Amino acid sequence: MKKILRINMSNLTFLEETIKEEYRYLGGRALISKIMINEVDPACDPLRKYNKIVIAPGLLTGTIAPCSGRLSIGGKSPLTGGIKEANTGGTPSQKIAKLGYKAIVIEGIAQKDKLYIIKINPEGVEIIQADELKGMGTYQTAKNLRDKYGNNYSVICIGPAGEEKLLASSIAITDIEGDPARQAARGGLGAVLGSKRVKAIIVDNGEKDVIDYKDKQKFKKLIPDFVKDVVEMRKSMTEYGTACLVDVVNSFKGLPTRNFSLGEFEGAEKINGKELRKRIIERKGKISHPCHPGCIIRCSNVYNDEKGNYLTSGLEYETIALTGANCGIDDLDIIAKIDYFCDNFGIDTIDTGAAIGVLMESGFMEFGDKEGVLRLLDEIKKLTPLGRIIASGARITGKVFGVTRVPEVKGQAIPGYDPRVFKGTGVTFTTSPMGADHTAGICFPGRGGYREETKDGSKIKHYEGNKIQVALSSDLQVMTTVCDSLGFCYFVGTNLKNMNLFAKLINHRYGLNVIGEDMITLGKETLKTERAFNKAAGITEAQDRLPEFFREEKIKPDGYVFDVDKNEIEKIYNF
Amino acid sequence: MKKILRINMSNLTFLEETIKEEYRYLGGRALISKIMINEVDPACDPLRKYNKIVIAPGLLTGTIAPCSGRLSIGGKSPLTGGIKEANTGGTPSQKIAKLGYKAIVIEGIAQKDKLYIIKINPEGVEIIQADELKGMGTYQTAKNLRDKYGNNYSVICIGPAGEEKLLASSIAITDIEGDPARQAARGGLGAVLGSKRVKAIIVDNGEKDVIDYKDKQKFKKLIPDFVKDVVEMRKSMTEYGTACLVDVVNSFKGLPTRNFSLGEFEGAEKINGKELRKRIIERKGKISHPCHPGCIIRCSNVYNDEKGNYLTSGLEYETIALTGANCGIDDLDIIAKIDYFCDNFGIDTIDTGAAIGVLMESGFMEFGDKEGVLRLLDEIKKLTPLGRIIASGARITGKVFGVTRVPEVKGQAIPGYDPRVFKGTGVTFTTSPMGADHTAGICFPGRGGYREETKDGSKIKHYEGNKIQVALSSDLQVMTTVCDSLGFCYFVGTNLKNMNLFAKLINHRYGLNVIGEDMITLGKETLKTERAFNKAAGITEAQDRLPEFFREEKIKPDGYVFDVDKNEIEKIYNF
Repeated sequence: MKKILRINMSNLTFLEETIKEEYRYLGGRALISKIMINEVDPACDPLRKYNKIVIAPGLLTGTIAPCSGRLSIGGKSPLTGGIKEANTGGTPSQKIAKLGYKAIVIEGIAQKDKLYIIKINPEGVEIIQADELKGMGTYQTAKNLRDKYGNNYSVICIGPAGEEKLLASSIAITDIEGDPARQAARGGLGAVLGSKRVKAIIVDNGEKDVIDYKDKQKFKKLIPDFVKDVVEMRKSMTEYGTACLVDVVNSFKGLPTRNFSLGEFEGAEKINGKELRKRIIERKGKISHPCHPGCIIRCSNVYNDEKGNYLTSGLEYETIALTGANCGIDDLDIIAKIDYFCDNFGIDTIDTGAAIGVLMESGFMEFGDKEGVLRLLDEIKKLTPLGRIIASGARITGKVFGVTRVPEVKGQAIPGYDPRVFKGTGVTFTTSPMGADHTAGICFPGRGGYREETKDGSKIKHYEGNKIQVALSSDLQVMTTVCDSLGFCYFVGTNLKNMNLFAKLINHRYGLNVIGEDMITLGKETLKTERAFNKAAGITEAQDRLPEFFREEKIKPDGYVFDVDKNEIEKIYNF
Repeated sequence: MKKILRINMSNLTFLEETIKEEYRYLGGRALISKIMINEVDPACDPLRKYNKIVIAPGLLTGTIAPCSGRLSIGGKSPLTGGIKEANTGGTPSQKIAKLGYKAIVIEGIAQKDKLYIIKINPEGVEIIQADELKGMGTYQTAKNLRDKYGNNYSVICIGPAGEEKLLASSIAITDIEGDPARQAARGGLGAVLGSKRVKAIIVDNGEKDVIDYKDKQKFKKLIPDFVKDVVEMRKSMTEYGTACLVDVVNSFKGLPTRNFSLGEFEGAEKINGKELRKRIIERKGKISHPCHPGCIIRCSNVYNDEKGNYLTSGLEYETIALTGANCGIDDLDIIAKIDYFCDNFGIDTIDTGAAIGVLMESGFMEFGDKEGVLRLLDEIKKLTPLGRIIASGARITGKVFGVTRVPEVKGQAIPGYDPRVFKGTGVTFTTSPMGADHTAGICFPGRGGYREETKDGSKIKHYEGNKIQVALSSDLQVMTTVCDSLGFCYFVGTNLKNMNLFAKLINHRYGLNVIGEDMITLGKETLKTERAFNKAAGITEAQDRLPEFFREEKIKPDGYVFDVDKNEIEKIYNF
């Protein structure tokens, strides 16, 4: 992995570039942050030619380490105006790594009204005009491309939303079955790819595999204990999927309900992990499904309809929380339809769910109006003005409909944790360079970061005060960033033990001599680089804010507000 | 003028407050900037309770100085996210000054679903529930209020747009006839008033007039020469209205045409000052109409339809440029209908015209589609999703329709001067704390600021280089700010001679001993205060940018791009 593949869409050329020394031991999110700050004017228009898309496997992607095959896709976000790394499962990351690419950088912008795919395999790279894919959903796009070029290809593609440069556009990635059900969903990066007129990147490494190890035996030896720990810790996720969180978050009374007006949803048991599992099994779908080869948590699923036909895949907690409880929808079949629609049309389920919640708050439609939501999906599909508004995300929807109770930070919708209850998570939403994000450092009340383990064993308590919320958020933001940089799913555990383990894995893979603390440093440096990019893009401390209502309206039923001291929050980057 | 009237909409109370010493010799825009930075959290949500609306006559308003009766309305803009002062004519400013109020500050937010008017006269202040005005256009609102409370009342009110908190909402102000045809149009301040649930402020000073002079005779003596100069300089405006600029700007080939793709409009002579004058006279409208009592330029008008019935008033250059040429519309009757609609519904014609231009660029409708534009007005009126998008201004329209050729800076639409041709004006659009604004310092090629007069008589030439464009913009921004702070219409002349004159007027009015240079300092300090507010609101140098296309696409037919050096532009606030 010593090359960067550059694709220039302005002149339809490509270039393999030997990496700078600076990038040598960086991967995923860390590498994206450096490439972006070195190469992209932070103040550029994210949907014009100066922005870039960077697709980067993690530093350990392609190895035999479990859960290390996640993919980072980055660029300047049209949703937040800042830097974005969207993290996803699927099959392409390991193929890109095995081809020897640390990153694929897509630059420039192609001629108007044309559409292209980029085909990458061991023989080389082709940029192929593919106007026939215009306006096509991601499912049909992936099918067509795999039918035409072979099922060994992984597909990274956009739907109609990305082509239209709608701000909540996602990038879809094919899973093990070849369905584009995994999503680099957040930050509107699908619109960036669309602005460049790239419909899809397809990758096949064939027999090629450049991954080597300084000491494979030692690397291998570290795996069994790691596997054991992860499997044990994530049993509930393996059994129920991420949907197991519905009950957990609801029991904390922090489940976003009816546009974040309540923390407890009366329909929770109709949409929780148990109900999901029951339906999937009854309908002969798939439970305990890995999002990428080598995943041992297997929190994904394939969800069939009543007749046993495929309805969607990867029906996740955030989708259930935002398009379900947050819209007053207590019906998994409806939620699954929304999920499939969003995946296929190419928009983020979180921002879409939040936008619909805001629309409901405006009085345009009622909370819980299932048929209304399905009609809304049709509006999006037809690209009506209303459909375009919703597909532009929660912030724009709030502005257009005159609603100020809009759950978003830096333009990106808040995922499935009310920050009045999940206060450390609220700190993450407030301060993450990504805006409100479900993969940036989610803190559960009572659970800690690495500080917990370096202390005298005393447990961090629920609402233990301002400082601990900020410290928790900081720890988890840093360690999540490490996972995102190595290719690990953060569900393997953002804790100090793993930081130490990761350091060893890197040493045995690359012949380095790093320790856990170096991982922490990597995470911090990456966050600082991202923050520097944002500052130059005009995103300052003034944008490190939750919407005012979280500090003022007491959440029902428990009456909390978000009250973490602003001065404490401002200290979070003092590392 | 030693009092501030505070209206608290949260508890429906008011308070007369003796001003701080700091505010004593400030008025209009300068006073607004100080009140805002002292009292409003710059990072607050502009449409929630922490924002304020400040209504402030100028320091010389109410005096016999001609053209000194302009009104400043300020607050944090929901359109730009920064500070805003919107400047308007009409009759209320002199009445507020004569009542002894330096400013009316509207704070807090009233209970949901209620609507109020604020009645101010020498007897006191009443906050009156007025739900019957809900959803009413500004014309009917003004009529109803004047019918009910008396024709001596000036009305400051919002239309349905402001009530709906749409981002391009304006605040309408009644003119000499009592028609709400004058507009504090820019920055979306109508939405701020709407968020507070204030439909209207009505003001009558009755017999009250607190304006006194240190030396009225000396004050008076300065007037005749001033009048002579202004009348001479603005002959063309008096004859043709601001519409005289259509030919001027078109001859420079910088008239925004079809979403700023051309600088010359083939239909210019159908919408220019001559045509406007001809029609107005034929149809027995009014030409050479003053926007406020004491105006000697009288560049306003009353425009009747073919049958001689009132169609609109104050049909101005910016409206003609943006809703006319910029949309490919070459028909004054259509433009007049748009103008009336916008005034009555309560939205800014500039942002509306720019938004329609962007919509046309997207392919949703054709440039020049007159019927289409009228249908669009109906969509706005009906508050359909499309209508709401347009009434949210050009930036939002661009985002929702995936257009990146959007003429706006800091979220506010660029008025009728293409910055590739009007480069100094481009510097103003880039750097003004107001965002792109038609009253922030418009520089004509070949015309200078006060530096011109302090030099050896050599004329500043068209495109004389970067430094002079920045210097010109700086001078005009500063001196326009002075006018906005004293209550003068900036058409009286933003030049050093006037700065000296204004200083003398202030001395004879207030018994001070200031000189022209002090006026310059006042302008600079005000701009710095505004900029500091914006910085704390998160608006940094990164937002001091024109849209990328102005630097890249050559304007037809003359092939210029906006090429003022960024480093030079960044120096503009080094005073």
